[in-house]
Amino acid sequence: MTRARVVIENIVPQVDGGRFAVKRVRGDMVSVSADVFADGHDLVACAVLFRRRGDTEWQRVAMSGAGNDRFAAQFAVSELGRYEFTVEAWVDHLATWKRDIEKKRAAGQDTRVDEARGAQLERAGIDPDLVTRHEPPLTVEVERELARFSSWYELFPRSTSDKPGKHGTFADCAARLPYVASMGFDILYLPPIHPIGFTERKGPNNKVGAAKVDVGSPWAIGAASGGHKATITELGSLEDFARLRREAAELGIEIAIDIAYQCSPDHPYVREHPEWFLKRADGTVQYAENPPKKYQDIYPFYFETTAWRALWQELKSVVDFWIEAGVRVFRVDNPHTKPFPFWEWLIGEVRSAHPDVIFLSEAFTRPKVMYRLAKLGFSQSYTYFTWRNTREEIEQYLTEVTRPPVSDYFRPSLWPNTPDILPEYLQFGGRPAFMARLVLAATLGASYGIYGPAFELLEHEPREPGSEEYLDSEKYQLRQWDLERPDSLRDLIARVNRIRREHRALQSDSSLRFHSVDNDSIIAYSKSTEDGEIILVAVNLDPRYRQSGWIDLDLAGFGLAAEKSFQVHDLLTDARFLWHGARNYIELDPRTLPAHVFRLRRKVRTEHDFDYYL
Amino acid sequence: MTRARVVIENIVPQVDGGRFAVKRVRGDMVSVSADVFADGHDLVACAVLFRRRGDTEWQRVAMSGAGNDRFAAQFAVSELGRYEFTVEAWVDHLATWKRDIEKKRAAGQDTRVDEARGAQLERAGIDPDLVTRHEPPLTVEVERELARFSSWYELFPRSTSDKPGKHGTFADCAARLPYVASMGFDILYLPPIHPIGFTERKGPNNKVGAAKVDVGSPWAIGAASGGHKATITELGSLEDFARLRREAAELGIEIAIDIAYQCSPDHPYVREHPEWFLKRADGTVQYAENPPKKYQDIYPFYFETTAWRALWQELKSVVDFWIEAGVRVFRVDNPHTKPFPFWEWLIGEVRSAHPDVIFLSEAFTRPKVMYRLAKLGFSQSYTYFTWRNTREEIEQYLTEVTRPPVSDYFRPSLWPNTPDILPEYLQFGGRPAFMARLVLAATLGASYGIYGPAFELLEHEPREPGSEEYLDSEKYQLRQWDLERPDSLRDLIARVNRIRREHRALQSDSSLRFHSVDNDSIIAYSKSTEDGEIILVAVNLDPRYRQSGWIDLDLAGFGLAAEKSFQVHDLLTDARFLWHGARNYIELDPRTLPAHVFRLRRKVRTEHDFDYYL
Repeated sequence: MTRARVVIENIVPQVDGGRFAVKRVRGDMVSVSADVFADGHDLVACAVLFRRRGDTEWQRVAMSGAGNDRFAAQFAVSELGRYEFTVEAWVDHLATWKRDIEKKRAAGQDTRVDEARGAQLERAGIDPDLVTRHEPPLTVEVERELARFSSWYELFPRSTSDKPGKHGTFADCAARLPYVASMGFDILYLPPIHPIGFTERKGPNNKVGAAKVDVGSPWAIGAASGGHKATITELGSLEDFARLRREAAELGIEIAIDIAYQCSPDHPYVREHPEWFLKRADGTVQYAENPPKKYQDIYPFYFETTAWRALWQELKSVVDFWIEAGVRVFRVDNPHTKPFPFWEWLIGEVRSAHPDVIFLSEAFTRPKVMYRLAKLGFSQSYTYFTWRNTREEIEQYLTEVTRPPVSDYFRPSLWPNTPDILPEYLQFGGRPAFMARLVLAATLGASYGIYGPAFELLEHEPREPGSEEYLDSEKYQLRQWDLERPDSLRDLIARVNRIRREHRALQSDSSLRFHSVDNDSIIAYSKSTEDGEIILVAVNLDPRYRQSGWIDLDLAGFGLAAEKSFQVHDLLTDARFLWHGARNYIELDPRTLPAHVFRLRRKVRTEHDFDYYL
Repeated sequence: MTRARVVIENIVPQVDGGRFAVKRVRGDMVSVSADVFADGHDLVACAVLFRRRGDTEWQRVAMSGAGNDRFAAQFAVSELGRYEFTVEAWVDHLATWKRDIEKKRAAGQDTRVDEARGAQLERAGIDPDLVTRHEPPLTVEVERELARFSSWYELFPRSTSDKPGKHGTFADCAARLPYVASMGFDILYLPPIHPIGFTERKGPNNKVGAAKVDVGSPWAIGAASGGHKATITELGSLEDFARLRREAAELGIEIAIDIAYQCSPDHPYVREHPEWFLKRADGTVQYAENPPKKYQDIYPFYFETTAWRALWQELKSVVDFWIEAGVRVFRVDNPHTKPFPFWEWLIGEVRSAHPDVIFLSEAFTRPKVMYRLAKLGFSQSYTYFTWRNTREEIEQYLTEVTRPPVSDYFRPSLWPNTPDILPEYLQFGGRPAFMARLVLAATLGASYGIYGPAFELLEHEPREPGSEEYLDSEKYQLRQWDLERPDSLRDLIARVNRIRREHRALQSDSSLRFHSVDNDSIIAYSKSTEDGEIILVAVNLDPRYRQSGWIDLDLAGFGLAAEKSFQVHDLLTDARFLWHGARNYIELDPRTLPAHVFRLRRKVRTEHDFDYYL
C-alpha cells in the first residue's frame, strides 16, 4: 500500500500502456510529458529517469510545468538499442514553503514562526517513501537514422543482363549500381536470390505448367541445390553476392534482401523436417491455399507444429546467416501470415545482438494487423499509400500514420508500385501520373521506394483488364529494360532524391501538415524543421488537365509575418516566385511537371539595406 | 513465452488500462468490445468471460464480429459490488475448415481429402495452449441505481425551525420532509450535524470574532461535547437523527450526511491525537492556510504523519459509525485536499463491506484532480456545470463528461447553486435564470441537486459585489425561509422531478446529444432510450429577452422518417405541437417559462385508420 500523494498519469509517449517500445532513431530527443498532481495546494516536482537497458544507474532530467498539471522534459538517445524511461514525482515541500512565505511577506504578515519550518524542510530532504514512480518503466527502441529516412529501389537482379534472354548475375547487378546511385537511392532491395523450386513451377504471367526454359518465381524458394541460405547458381555464388554488397557500399547503397518464410516443394526442409509442414489426410503436404485458389508451388510452414521451437530457431538462423553475410536491411515478405509472437521473438533476438538491423514489413493487409506488426518491432511498413489517390484519401491516411499514437511505433514506407501492384492510377494516368506519384511518395514520406526499372520506364500494362498484376511480370520471367529511353523519369527521380538529401524537413514525417487549396485536384502540404526550414509541396492529382487554385497557408504556424512577402523557390525547376500573405495562386500542368516542391525563403535585410531571401 | 496466434487489443470499456474499475449500476448491460485478430486468413472466435469478484468460475458469452476485426458481446450485472471480466480468443480451425470447404465445393473442387481434416479438427477441440486471454481481468464496480439517477436537496437543518431566531432541530427538519418530498427529491443532504468549535468561531458573513449568540460554521467540526461521531445538542440526539432518517425513508427520501475531514481547535482529536496534526515551530497547531488567507478555526489533518495508519483507520471509523446509524449516502467535503491513496483505500474498504454506499465528491478543483477522485471510487462528482452558462460552454463540457472514456468512471452531479456558490448568472438573471438553470441541471444530468430553500426562493444577493458567497449565508447564521412565497419555484421543481421519474430517457446521461439551433441563445438537446422514448429539451439561456429560432433535428438518429410529421408534447405545460420534418420553429419567453421539455410522439395509425401519437 503506497501513500505517496503525487499521481502520475497519461505519460506520453507510450505504446499500448507500455506493452511495446516507442520507436526513435539515434540522435533523436525523446520528449516526455505527463500529468502530475497531488492533493491540496502543495507544489509538486517531477523528473524523467532514463537509462540504456542493462544499465543500473538512472539519469535524471527535471520536468517543467506546461500548465493544466502537465509536465515535460526531454532526453537524447545517442546509442542504438533499447532505452528505458519513467517519471518520478513528489511533493516539493521546500518550494511550497518558499511560495507561501513570499505571499505572506508580500501581505506584511509576521513570518517568524514560518522561517523555522523552512530550515527544518531543508534538513529533511525528500522522503523516498512519499515519492511516486511510474512502474514498470517504458521502453524506447533506438534504430539507425536509415529506419526513419530511406529511399528504396527494388529490382530483379536476374533482369540486369545486357544480353536479351540471358539470366542476369550478381556481377550484372553490380554494373547497374552506378545507375541506381545516380538516382540517389540508398537501399537496393533484391527479391529472393535463392534456388527456385521446379515442382509445380509457374510460367510467364503465372501460368500453370512451366516450360523447361522458364525461370519461375523467386518466392518459390528452395531446390535440391539449397534453400534460404543459398544463392541460385544463375545469379552467382555467395562470394559474388559479397562483392555486389561491397561495391554497393562504396556507392553509399545498402543491399536489402527478402525474407520470405515459405518453401517450394523441392526445398530441403520439406525432406529434412516434414514435422514443420502440415500433412493432408492423404499424406501429401498442405500447399498454400486461399480457397478456391491453390498455390501448389508453395508450402507454408506449419507454425502450430509441436516442433515449433526448432522451427523458430531455424528461421532465425536464416536471418543470422545473412547478417553474417553483411546484410543489415531485410524486407520481410507477407509477415502477416506468420504468428505475431514469432516476429516479436525473432526481431527482439536479432536486434538485441545487432541493433543496426532494419526490418521492412510487407504486410498489405487489414489496418490493425499492419499496426500490430509494427508494434512487434518492424522498423518500417508498407502502407495503403499505393491506393490512396484523391486529396481526401491522402490527407486522411497520411495524417493518421504520421501523428501519435501511430507514429510512435509505425514508420510508413510509401511505394507507388511494387512487383505485385500496378495500381489503376498508373495504368491509365500516363507519364504525369508517374511523376505525381513519385513526388507524393518522396515528399509525403521520409521513407519511400519504387520498383524499377518498371517505374521510371512508365511500365503500365496490366496482365488483364482489372488486374493489378504487371503484364509479363518479372516475377515469372526475365525482362530486358531500355534504361536510356528518353521518357525515363530517371532525371526527375535523381532531382527529387537530391532535394530529399539536402533538406532535413523531408527527412522525417512528424511535421507534415496539409494546407487548403480551393481546387480538390491540387494537394498541398508542408514539412519543416525546428530551425526554420520549410518545404511546401503542391501536386496536381489530375494527370490529364492543367489545374489551378488558391492555396491558403498558416503563415503564423510557419513563423512568417501575416502581411509580409516571401519567396517560394521551386527546387524541382529552380524557379522563384514572390508571394504575398497567406493566399497565393498556383497552377500546375501535368504535361510538363505536375508538382512544385518549394522552399520558403524569408526576406532578410542586410546592414546595408539590401534585401535577400534566406 | 506464449505462441498463441490471436491478439486481443483495445478492450472497451476500461479505465487507465485497467488500473481502475469501470462504473455501472445494478441491472446495466456491460457492452464489451475488442480488436481480435490472428495472422493469416484463419477465422478467430472469442468470448467475454465475467464473474463476480470472489467467484472461481467464469461465465462466458460468445462475441460476435462487428467488422474491421472488432468483436462485441454484453453481460448483465445484477448484483452490487465488483465484477471482473476479460476476453479470451483463439483460432477457430473448425469454422475455418467449414468456410474453406464450402468455397471449394462451390467451385466444384474435389474435397475428399479435406473432409478427413474436418473430423480430425472436431476431435482435437481447442488447444488451451493456443488460447489468448487478456490478463489481468478488468473490473466493473456495480452500484445502486441511485448512483446514476438521483435528485439531491440540500438544506441546513438548523434553519428549519418555524420560530424566528430559534435553532432548528432534527424534529423540525423531519417536519420539512413532506415539503421536500412534494418537490420529488430522493436525497436530502444535510451539512455537518456535529458539535461546532468555539475557538476562533466565525460570525455572520464569515466575520472574524463571533458573538456569544453566533452559531458558527458546521464545517468547524468538534467541541468538548464530541467530534465526527456526535451530533450537536441543538439539533438533537442520535436517536432524534435516527427518527428523522426513518421518517425520510417512509417518504422515499434518503438522508445524506457530510464527511468533512477537518477539525475545529476544540475537537477531541486535537488533544487526544496531537500526532495527527502538524506542529508549527512555536508548538502551536498549523491551522488551514491559503496564503495570505488564514483559517484559524480549522485544523487540517496532517496526512504525512508517521501515525498515518491509525489516522486512516480512525477516519474510516467515522464513515462506519454513520453506516451503523443507517446512512448510505455521503457527500464528501473537499476530498481534493486529502491524499488520493487514502480515498482509494477508504472507499474500497467501505464498499467491499457495504456495496450500497454512495459517495459524492465535492471537489471543485482542477479537471485532472476531479477525474482522479472519480477513478478512485467516488460514485458521483460535483462539476463545472455551476459556471457553464453559454451554449458553447454547456455543450462542450457536458459532451466531455457524458461520453467515454470520462463517463466510464465519472458521474456528473449538476448543481445550479451550493451554499458556497451563488453564481453570477443567478445574481443578475432573476427568476428566469433560476428556472433555466433548474431545467438545465435536471435534464442535462441524470443526477442533479439544489441548495434550498435558497434556490426555490430565488436567493440572489451576494455578500459583496463580485463575490459568489451568499449574503447572510446559512453557513454562519440561522435563517428563516418563507416557503409559501408566491414566486417560489417549488411547483416547477415538482413538475421537473416528476418528469424525470416518469421518463427513463432522463435517468441516464449516455444518450445526451445536442442539436443545432440558429440562435445561440437557445440550447437544444435530447435524451432517449433504446426502446424509443425521446425527450427533447430547449432552453432560452437569455434570462431577459424572448428568443426564437429554428431547431434542426437528426430525425434518422431518432428513428423518425425524414418527411413525416410528429407530435412534440411539452411535459412542462402539457401543450402539444405538430412538427414536420427536421427543421422546426421554437420561441421561448423567459418571463413565462424559458424551457420546453418535449416528449416526441410518433404518429401511429390504428387498424381503423385512426391516427394517434404514441
